[in-house]
Amino acid sequence: MKLQGQEEYEASSAHENVSAGELESDHGPSHSPGSSSETDSRELGVCTDPPLFIQLNELLGWPEALEWRETGRWMLFEEKLEVDAGRWSAPHVPTLALPSLQHLRSLLVKGLVLLDCPARNLLELVEQVIRVESLSPELRGQLQALLLQRPQHHIQTRTWPCWGSTPPKKVPHNENVPLKEQHQNPLRQKLPPEAEVATVLAGELGFLPQPLGAFVRLRDPVVLGTLTEVPLPSRFFCLLLGPAMPGRGYHEMGRAAAVLLSDPQFQWSVRRASNLHDLLAALDAFLEEVTVLPPGRWDPTARILPPKCLSSQHKRSLSRKREVEGFSTRRMAGAEDRRGPGPQVPCPELQRTGRLFGGLVQDVNRKASWYTTDFLDALHPQCFSAVLYIYLATVTNAITFGGLLGDATDGAQGVLESFLGTAVAGAAFCLLAGQPLTILSSTGPVLVFERLLFSFSRDHNLDYLPFRLWVGIWVATFCLVLVATEASVLVRYFTRFTEEGFCALISFIFIYDALGKMVNLTHAYPIQRPGFPGYGCFCQYPDPQGNESQWATTKQKNRDDILSMDLGLVNASLLPPSECTQQGGQPRGPGCHTVPDIAFFSLLLFLTSFFFATAFKHVKTSSFFPSVVRKVLSDFSSVLAILLGCGLDAFLGLATPKLTVPTEFKPTLPGRGWLVSPFGANPWWLSVAAALPALLLTILIFMDQQITAVILNRAEYKLQKGAGFHLDLFCVAVLILLTSALGLPWYVSATVISLAHMDSLRRESRVCAPGEAPSFLGIREQRLTGLVVFILTGFSIFLAPVLKFIPMPVLYGIFLYMGVAALSSIQFVKRVQLLLMPAKHQPDLMLLRHVPLNRVHLFTAIQLVCLGTPLAG
Amino acid sequence: MKLQGQEEYEASSAHENVSAGELESDHGPSHSPGSSSETDSRELGVCTDPPLFIQLNELLGWPEALEWRETGRWMLFEEKLEVDAGRWSAPHVPTLALPSLQHLRSLLVKGLVLLDCPARNLLELVEQVIRVESLSPELRGQLQALLLQRPQHHIQTRTWPCWGSTPPKKVPHNENVPLKEQHQNPLRQKLPPEAEVATVLAGELGFLPQPLGAFVRLRDPVVLGTLTEVPLPSRFFCLLLGPAMPGRGYHEMGRAAAVLLSDPQFQWSVRRASNLHDLLAALDAFLEEVTVLPPGRWDPTARILPPKCLSSQHKRSLSRKREVEGFSTRRMAGAEDRRGPGPQVPCPELQRTGRLFGGLVQDVNRKASWYTTDFLDALHPQCFSAVLYIYLATVTNAITFGGLLGDATDGAQGVLESFLGTAVAGAAFCLLAGQPLTILSSTGPVLVFERLLFSFSRDHNLDYLPFRLWVGIWVATFCLVLVATEASVLVRYFTRFTEEGFCALISFIFIYDALGKMVNLTHAYPIQRPGFPGYGCFCQYPDPQGNESQWATTKQKNRDDILSMDLGLVNASLLPPSECTQQGGQPRGPGCHTVPDIAFFSLLLFLTSFFFATAFKHVKTSSFFPSVVRKVLSDFSSVLAILLGCGLDAFLGLATPKLTVPTEFKPTLPGRGWLVSPFGANPWWLSVAAALPALLLTILIFMDQQITAVILNRAEYKLQKGAGFHLDLFCVAVLILLTSALGLPWYVSATVISLAHMDSLRRESRVCAPGEAPSFLGIREQRLTGLVVFILTGFSIFLAPVLKFIPMPVLYGIFLYMGVAALSSIQFVKRVQLLLMPAKHQPDLMLLRHVPLNRVHLFTAIQLVCLGTPLAG
Repeated sequence: MKLQGQEEYEASSAHENVSAGELESDHGPSHSPGSSSETDSRELGVCTDPPLFIQLNELLGWPEALEWRETGRWMLFEEKLEVDAGRWSAPHVPTLALPSLQHLRSLLVKGLVLLDCPARNLLELVEQVIRVESLSPELRGQLQALLLQRPQHHIQTRTWPCWGSTPPKKVPHNENVPLKEQHQNPLRQKLPPEAEVATVLAGELGFLPQPLGAFVRLRDPVVLGTLTEVPLPSRFFCLLLGPAMPGRGYHEMGRAAAVLLSDPQFQWSVRRASNLHDLLAALDAFLEEVTVLPPGRWDPTARILPPKCLSSQHKRSLSRKREVEGFSTRRMAGAEDRRGPGPQVPCPELQRTGRLFGGLVQDVNRKASWYTTDFLDALHPQCFSAVLYIYLATVTNAITFGGLLGDATDGAQGVLESFLGTAVAGAAFCLLAGQPLTILSSTGPVLVFERLLFSFSRDHNLDYLPFRLWVGIWVATFCLVLVATEASVLVRYFTRFTEEGFCALISFIFIYDALGKMVNLTHAYPIQRPGFPGYGCFCQYPDPQGNESQWATTKQKNRDDILSMDLGLVNASLLPPSECTQQGGQPRGPGCHTVPDIAFFSLLLFLTSFFFATAFKHVKTSSFFPSVVRKVLSDFSSVLAILLGCGLDAFLGLATPKLTVPTEFKPTLPGRGWLVSPFGANPWWLSVAAALPALLLTILIFMDQQITAVILNRAEYKLQKGAGFHLDLFCVAVLILLTSALGLPWYVSATVISLAHMDSLRRESRVCAPGEAPSFLGIREQRLTGLVVFILTGFSIFLAPVLKFIPMPVLYGIFLYMGVAALSSIQFVKRVQLLLMPAKHQPDLMLLRHVPLNRVHLFTAIQLVCLGTPLAG
Repeated sequence: MKLQGQEEYEASSAHENVSAGELESDHGPSHSPGSSSETDSRELGVCTDPPLFIQLNELLGWPEALEWRETGRWMLFEEKLEVDAGRWSAPHVPTLALPSLQHLRSLLVKGLVLLDCPARNLLELVEQVIRVESLSPELRGQLQALLLQRPQHHIQTRTWPCWGSTPPKKVPHNENVPLKEQHQNPLRQKLPPEAEVATVLAGELGFLPQPLGAFVRLRDPVVLGTLTEVPLPSRFFCLLLGPAMPGRGYHEMGRAAAVLLSDPQFQWSVRRASNLHDLLAALDAFLEEVTVLPPGRWDPTARILPPKCLSSQHKRSLSRKREVEGFSTRRMAGAEDRRGPGPQVPCPELQRTGRLFGGLVQDVNRKASWYTTDFLDALHPQCFSAVLYIYLATVTNAITFGGLLGDATDGAQGVLESFLGTAVAGAAFCLLAGQPLTILSSTGPVLVFERLLFSFSRDHNLDYLPFRLWVGIWVATFCLVLVATEASVLVRYFTRFTEEGFCALISFIFIYDALGKMVNLTHAYPIQRPGFPGYGCFCQYPDPQGNESQWATTKQKNRDDILSMDLGLVNASLLPPSECTQQGGQPRGPGCHTVPDIAFFSLLLFLTSFFFATAFKHVKTSSFFPSVVRKVLSDFSSVLAILLGCGLDAFLGLATPKLTVPTEFKPTLPGRGWLVSPFGANPWWLSVAAALPALLLTILIFMDQQITAVILNRAEYKLQKGAGFHLDLFCVAVLILLTSALGLPWYVSATVISLAHMDSLRRESRVCAPGEAPSFLGIREQRLTGLVVFILTGFSIFLAPVLKFIPMPVLYGIFLYMGVAALSSIQFVKRVQLLLMPAKHQPDLMLLRHVPLNRVHLFTAIQLVCLGTPLAG
């Protein structure tokens, strides 16, 4: 086992780019827990040398005011000092002029190359360097003084990140001891502790008769006092000085030397070089691999942003090897891309054993071996924030789905059942399932099925919950048969087509439902058009004799024509309906039952919650605000949007339809206990007939559950503890039995929220060079975060008094947002967009480089037809 | 004078990038009309050679099925054939591996170089090329047959742009005559007729004993039959064949040769080369200028998009010269950038003459010399679409501002005045002004002033229009004084600070006004909260005795407490208020005067028109739909948004507040004639006192007018006919006098719509290489488009019956959109955004490379304070 946090230092970007195929063989679930670190170091290969930080100290101000100034620095990418603006540029891909590399080469040929120099401080180093024959003693003295002069570093302090940085103060100091500001340099935190420094000194020095070049490798790296920006030991030292040269010759040559040193293969060679010849060979090997941009086709002052995904050493040597072996790299890239639609899960878990429940037994055995670590691995601060985030998302889901369920079943089930069911089913699943990172939820398709089932039983005067119990019993039975026959191995045949089709179907159901709810709402609260008889409403009191109304009895024939009727002798007032009823009267007239302004205000709330949830989600990728603020806004986008909607509603105080919440802890349906009676008022044969809808629901649940499982267990997430398809399905079956018996909603794995759960548990390399994206190391696979989330959800039943302030349109808006967000994440939608784009404007997608557009469109069209059929039905 | 359309072919990208400073001296207004073409050709310099189209024909299928296939093509950028996908890639910046250039060089050294080859067709050319000593006669025969084989070209037909392209058909054909598909190649339209072709043939040919390289320059360019994709004469021919080589060696070498040939300086040299030495020197000169990307820092399969603004030959040689002269390019770039905030207009027009009205006389003289061409230059189809576009924008403005003016002055002026004033003032200005591209409009600040003036005169019981007439007389007088004293030369001192401050102020007024209007609307149509006494309303009829109401007289003391009152003996019904009045009754109760649903529906309309106007505007930069559709949606965004809002309103049929429109052609204020009487009911001394507000308005108008003029006359628009600051102000003064006398709104130049006018009249180079942005040649400066626009606006007064369907909230939404759009165009807003961005995420703006962040923030803060003061007031 590795210690917590240790692995972050070992990471290299090599890891990220290993193709899925290679991972399958290396990271398969049959590995023992300890084997992964071996694999890591083997893969890292050339990278066992300490990383190198390179800085360019430039000699400015010739001839009057000579000073050394750090004008550039490199780890993977270049950061340039914007001298006028007094700040470091953003990290960018360095670009060089070819002649500067050639000048550097010729200067090194003529210059001094000291490999394994024994100097122990800057003074000794400088003395070694200036011991060149061509220099007069006088020049040597001048040069020594100059080289010992303290350079200016622009150290960015963190106190006022928005307001630039304070200029470095000049205080007299012993140049052999690093300054306080060097120690406090925030750059140090970006560098691993074992990092070494290379310093390039370059500039125009008019009194030199000819250019002076020196390249030094120190035998034992030492901290060279104030020379370097960070007080780390120096390994390389490169000096490039000389008389005036056209342009910024020495600056460019210095940059060339620094870029060379930042190349890992050059580093590797030069650490092992034993003479000038080796050094030049390394330089020539570098030149062999550079990419060339023709002049005038590209603005040289433009800076190329660091690529998201850095092509690693590993890949570089591989691609070179392929080239040598005569492979066409183009073809290989195509082949790698084309394997996309194929099976995306590791295969060993999906081999049929041929024994009854064989897969389940295998899953249980595999999972049992990890069970202790499933709790120990959760001991990391990251898990706390994951719990908070997923708890809020789960509660939001429980509220939303509970509210919708209450709507769908006319109150046979409700928010209380939703909370209770989520807590019980979710916690049980996290404790026992094969993939404990899964978060259960009553998703769209199941909800739609539940609504259809309810309509059916209402239309045929059936007792809903007992009927539902039998459906649940049958579903559980069918699922157990599927587990026994190891049907889950069929997920091997799930392709992009199946996955995307199902995902799109779910999304469309979300969207369709949200919009349908809003349309229903405008029917319940009609808009009042001018001339529409919605205005009239008065309050009628019974007359003293106790007759309800003279008018009602005497003018029976005109009763419908209330508008033009004389009121006659009545006791009436214009009190609003609610107050009228309180005072013993009765509201009369067509306007009493319409509530104005509700329809449009609900629409506004709906749009508000949808737009703000979307906007908050996108804050993450914007460049405003510190990253902490962006992360909070983005992670809690749904919660914030709901709060905003509630605030707006409370501010105006309109009678919008609100979430129905229980006032005490008992089932929503009045008069039933927690256990559903197996028959109720239904005939006995219905328990057999329930098998038919159960068959449909089983297919639905199997697809929904297994597609989510396939997505969660994709190789790109680098899961170490393997999947448990059979065990997962078994747990779902048991839980369906349980929730049916208790009259709680049905649950399956929810893709989006489970992915969010995994995302909040990502392990990434902490230390990375400026401009480098952190590399992904894996997921903290454990059972504790999910368990805690669902325990908290259970306690949230006591939140009920607060929940009654949530307007339903706000929840519909969140529902719409969920659908749109899920839809926009799949490639299918990108391909639908391609249908609308002229070929000229299409993005440079990998698939378009290799598949004819006709084929792409055909694939999309078939998917569209397949989707259209169930949606139209 | 130049012929229409001719100049488009002469254009080169060199033009676009000439710095503003150089343009000032070259394109000053003192030039005679004919001089610009000379300047053009002088600037073009090296580019007088015909442009070159380069294609790479690659030999594929060794050893079984040899075939030539065009796999790449170049003009400025590279297009690569995606062989699998069967389509051309998007144009991108070519990248090469350095070794491929070196291999090419050594192959050329050993190979055959034929300069001024006299071949007259492909057969002769091939015979010349294969006459190499090292080849056996048998090999020569094989090679000749191979070289004469017809290559496969992927010619993209235009019929189904969205559905890929049809594969080329194979028909037997004489290879010396170009095919029909070659003639129909849409690429031909991208190439100027004088263009020449270079063909590179490269590939692996196993039976060759050693690599074979040949470079041929034809003495007289000839069409080489089916060899080239387009049937244009070939000038260069390059052959690179040989035995197997690691990787895709010949492909890369062929690409290197093609990229070399696509470089203008290499082209120039190689057209004039007389021997191999010259050729190699040109290649080495190319190598001197290439940019180098280090390996592993950048994904070589990523394609670099063509830059928006291509650094031209001109600039390239200039920057080289600078480098040689020892200038620091960095410093120069900084200096160029820093001149941004300084004066942005050509200076000769802003020299003080020292004579009374001297500037005006100068302006009139200058403009008179262009007057005929001001009409002749409009004879171009582009002007028709410009008229349509600007007409719709002007009518939208006239409606919007007319509606707002009616609001602001309680109906003292209205839509009719707005239309009439726009037509009269606009047309007069286009006929007579110094800058006839200007579109007049009653802009935000003037409208705000008008509202203040109206409130003042209403509060003090003044006769508004006569008072306003005197203000107008004074403003005209003051403006004439400013013209006489040549005060307009002060615009030289307008900097970015002034311009942006004023522009931001106008934008904020737009936004503030739009939001304020919506708030007022919710006061006029209050939202009905539950329990709010807005429900009660009944209809009371006078009783047969003619007493209005027993209830009203007998229960006087309880009259206020209408809600809980017994109605007693009354004739009443629940008819809606409008029908009640029709039937002789009287609506009674607090609910009669409230119209439900209007407030929220208005808000929805407001948001709808704002969002859709914004969304339609942004369609232009999206990649969906063909460019024609995008252009229409974007250009007519306001009109479409208004139509959409009207449609939504008409669909629901609610009584939203609508635009008040005149039913006949007479002033909106009842009882006044077209001429405003000079005194009306006002005391005589008010005519003198009006000078005080007039002074304020003069400052406002001077600033508004001149800042717009400065922006329109910026050097970047390359106006040839010069500005007329004094003449413009003179015209504005006269028009203010006229409109005051007629009681019409006041007009000044409107920045946004004038810029849109100029934009719709841009002349751009029609022929440009794939990936190259069309270069900007200038503006069609003429008076006709504006004149026609305003004549059409005048006739639009008869549109009135249609306009009454426009709901006011829709107009407020458009108003908000105008404000937001104007705001987002200025750098000030970008800098305000910087305040909210952590330094790390800030974009790589030129100004941030050269100005310390503290300074930038300080500048922004001062602007914010300056803006806050008037807005708070």
